[in-house]
Amino acid sequence: MSGHLAVVGIGPGDARWLTAEADAALAGAEALYGYRAYLDRVPSRPGQERHPSDNREEGARAAVALRHAAAGAQVAIVSGGDPGVFAMAAAVCAEIEAGPESWRGLDVAIVPGVSAMLAVAARVGAPLGGDFCAISLSDNLKPWELIERRLAAAAGAGFVIALYNPTSRKRPWQLGAALDELRQWLPADTPVVFGRAVGRPDESVDVKRLDTAEPARADMATLVIVGSSQTRTIARSGRLPLVYTPRAVEKVTA
Amino acid sequence: MSGHLAVVGIGPGDARWLTAEADAALAGAEALYGYRAYLDRVPSRPGQERHPSDNREEGARAAVALRHAAAGAQVAIVSGGDPGVFAMAAAVCAEIEAGPESWRGLDVAIVPGVSAMLAVAARVGAPLGGDFCAISLSDNLKPWELIERRLAAAAGAGFVIALYNPTSRKRPWQLGAALDELRQWLPADTPVVFGRAVGRPDESVDVKRLDTAEPARADMATLVIVGSSQTRTIARSGRLPLVYTPRAVEKVTA
Repeated sequence: MSGHLAVVGIGPGDARWLTAEADAALAGAEALYGYRAYLDRVPSRPGQERHPSDNREEGARAAVALRHAAAGAQVAIVSGGDPGVFAMAAAVCAEIEAGPESWRGLDVAIVPGVSAMLAVAARVGAPLGGDFCAISLSDNLKPWELIERRLAAAAGAGFVIALYNPTSRKRPWQLGAALDELRQWLPADTPVVFGRAVGRPDESVDVKRLDTAEPARADMATLVIVGSSQTRTIARSGRLPLVYTPRAVEKVTA
Repeated sequence: MSGHLAVVGIGPGDARWLTAEADAALAGAEALYGYRAYLDRVPSRPGQERHPSDNREEGARAAVALRHAAAGAQVAIVSGGDPGVFAMAAAVCAEIEAGPESWRGLDVAIVPGVSAMLAVAARVGAPLGGDFCAISLSDNLKPWELIERRLAAAAGAGFVIALYNPTSRKRPWQLGAALDELRQWLPADTPVVFGRAVGRPDESVDVKRLDTAEPARADMATLVIVGSSQTRTIARSGRLPLVYTPRAVEKVTA
């Protein structure tokens, strides 16, 4: 039997966000690889190996899983959210490019999932309803100057912005710097959505204004969405406000 | 019993991309509303009303569904892909804002789904592996000059670009103009992914170079992904090439 590698997106938190395809890919695997916190969200199945690893070891994890599949096994790498968005699919491709020629012949399937920005957006309405972009604030992988340039370009052109990896213990100032950059481009009352641990028991979602949004509100499990000048807030008594960006733009503003 | 409105993303094509939450939301509805082509993808259930409508009637469809829910019914609006990405969730929010005060008290749930760009990306590897943006090319809803400005801003700052609604019978030249704009910013060999009807029996996916990519390759069912200067292509014999954008960027280039 020839080997197979599936890179499976399990969504951002709630098990009900798993797709049927992802569920089947996990059930059919002999061995699961992944960041420990994601593997913990996948039920154990008899006879299935589990190989948890740490968050930073994406390249090494991809290479080990590829070797295992190349030896003939049915292997799955578990990825939070969607595997193609700041997650494992790119690491797998990079290892295939750098690895032995035979890996290019391997059967590799990327199984898409609900990315965190879609789940956070859903909690408050439709902040991503117009043109939008996704930026990782991690400057472990790219220079901070590039991140600032992208923030300015996106806000200046009227994109709503989803910020992945807004902060971590080793990256304490980046979200504050990003919000400061965005304040130069966007109105003071632009809605900022903080979605923490969506779909998990400790979920919390808040809507703030850009001028007073505090970076300390975010942690490693948070995704932040910053609206455009078009994004609107609808107050509702006893509930979170609705936040949405109309698809129609009457005139060029920003 | 008080009414409820769910705006449900069913993913881009394959029924196996439905999440468990979306499946439950559809099963629990007394009445389904939606664009006819999306409703056709939802199995009939006994006793459940179905109200198909045309593609352009988003506002009217949202208002009718809200009125039905406000009258006490369990109502679902069916949306392709993710309801928050160029789909029904923003239209529902806009109707709530414009409608009677009581609609703000309605129980409204947005059920996220796999958006088309994630499914197309998965078919070829991880083209959205770095920072990226999503732009609708429909100039029914915003001025073409704004779309061109956003294309330039995104390409100039190194974002990968997912193009939704690239073309239609009434919008025949827009994708060609967009590719021309992007050619001013990006290398000739930048990968362009055409993903047509992904997950459906007539699926076709192609990878081309920006300099020779033909807009006629796209139709209404196509999503186009244009790489950045960082996006890489890995040739594979007898298969589509892998296309991916590394998460790491060594230096500022574009």
